[in-house]
Amino acid sequence: MIDLYTFTTPNGRKASIMLEEVELPYTVHKIDITKGDQFTPEFVAINPNSKIPAIADREAGITIFESGAILIYLAEKTGKLMPTEPKKRYQVLEWLMFQMAGVGPMFGQLNHFKKFAPEKIPYAIARYEKETLRLYSVLDQQLASHEFICEDYSIVDIATFPWVATYDFQGLTLDNHPHLKRWFEAIQARPAVIRGMAVPA
Amino acid sequence: MIDLYTFTTPNGRKASIMLEEVELPYTVHKIDITKGDQFTPEFVAINPNSKIPAIADREAGITIFESGAILIYLAEKTGKLMPTEPKKRYQVLEWLMFQMAGVGPMFGQLNHFKKFAPEKIPYAIARYEKETLRLYSVLDQQLASHEFICEDYSIVDIATFPWVATYDFQGLTLDNHPHLKRWFEAIQARPAVIRGMAVPA
Repeated sequence: MIDLYTFTTPNGRKASIMLEEVELPYTVHKIDITKGDQFTPEFVAINPNSKIPAIADREAGITIFESGAILIYLAEKTGKLMPTEPKKRYQVLEWLMFQMAGVGPMFGQLNHFKKFAPEKIPYAIARYEKETLRLYSVLDQQLASHEFICEDYSIVDIATFPWVATYDFQGLTLDNHPHLKRWFEAIQARPAVIRGMAVPA
Repeated sequence: MIDLYTFTTPNGRKASIMLEEVELPYTVHKIDITKGDQFTPEFVAINPNSKIPAIADREAGITIFESGAILIYLAEKTGKLMPTEPKKRYQVLEWLMFQMAGVGPMFGQLNHFKKFAPEKIPYAIARYEKETLRLYSVLDQQLASHEFICEDYSIVDIATFPWVATYDFQGLTLDNHPHLKRWFEAIQARPAVIRGMAVPA
């Protein structure tokens, strides 16, 4: 049994979608980051960076933080959604890093300046909107010749989907990136993705 | 022989420090991102995201982009600087993700708003300065009980060092984070780090 510490954010949903896809049983622990649950001593002992998601695999005696590391761990534990053939595996790792270092942080900054910041700062909104649309184009280009972001459905699609899913909240559209839109709609329809996106209740 | 495509940035230096540490011969290709070299068809064929660093391992017939994926690739190729024992290996992967998703993007935004943006925006500078200092504290706490960020010197130290090394450029000090400062000075003195930080010439 896996303990999942999560909240209703794109990074949290990566972990719940993955657990649904690989069909591992898990217990959800809601860490309400709007109430400061991530700063309790119990949670900081699991993630000194005070961020969700984190997991504890009690049988294996291991805890893991950072969504990207959780995805690799669960893929290797189950032998699913990450290829073992070296070229395909490194392709998955490079695109996973692209999501972790680019898509997540930059879409996140756009969310902040467009939706949450107490003042509307045109320069910052324009900066992150431009970068988000550039990242859409990189993904769209890749998806023009690939059904999924890498060769097969993988942890990269799972990592990227919940962030692309914020497009409407961000006041953006996928209509100008038809391959990204086609991919988004296909991932969105997967039963495990639907279940994972609803966690935590 | 490894071909390294890089420039004088923290992410670029991760790759050159790693190549120096594992003592793999490599050829440096300077991609001057101030002149748009990252947008040439030749480079985009290696990294569709148009960012340095990237490597080509011609003998293995593989190209890799994203500094985090390059570090994993070179560690696995040489059997150096990433443990194989599962708990230690996942610890390295989670802290590598912490660097890739947190330290790099957030220190990078501070650089932008403090040094490069055409207007000085107090809210944005304060936001990223606060987050950079919070990340310093997370590292300082970890380094209070560890000589290196994980159990042994690893790709995590290599990934984190060139970003911490921008503290002076950012107008910050390490003096309030003594464990981080002790670690920084130890890493800075390593011959391979000195050589890697000087690439590209």
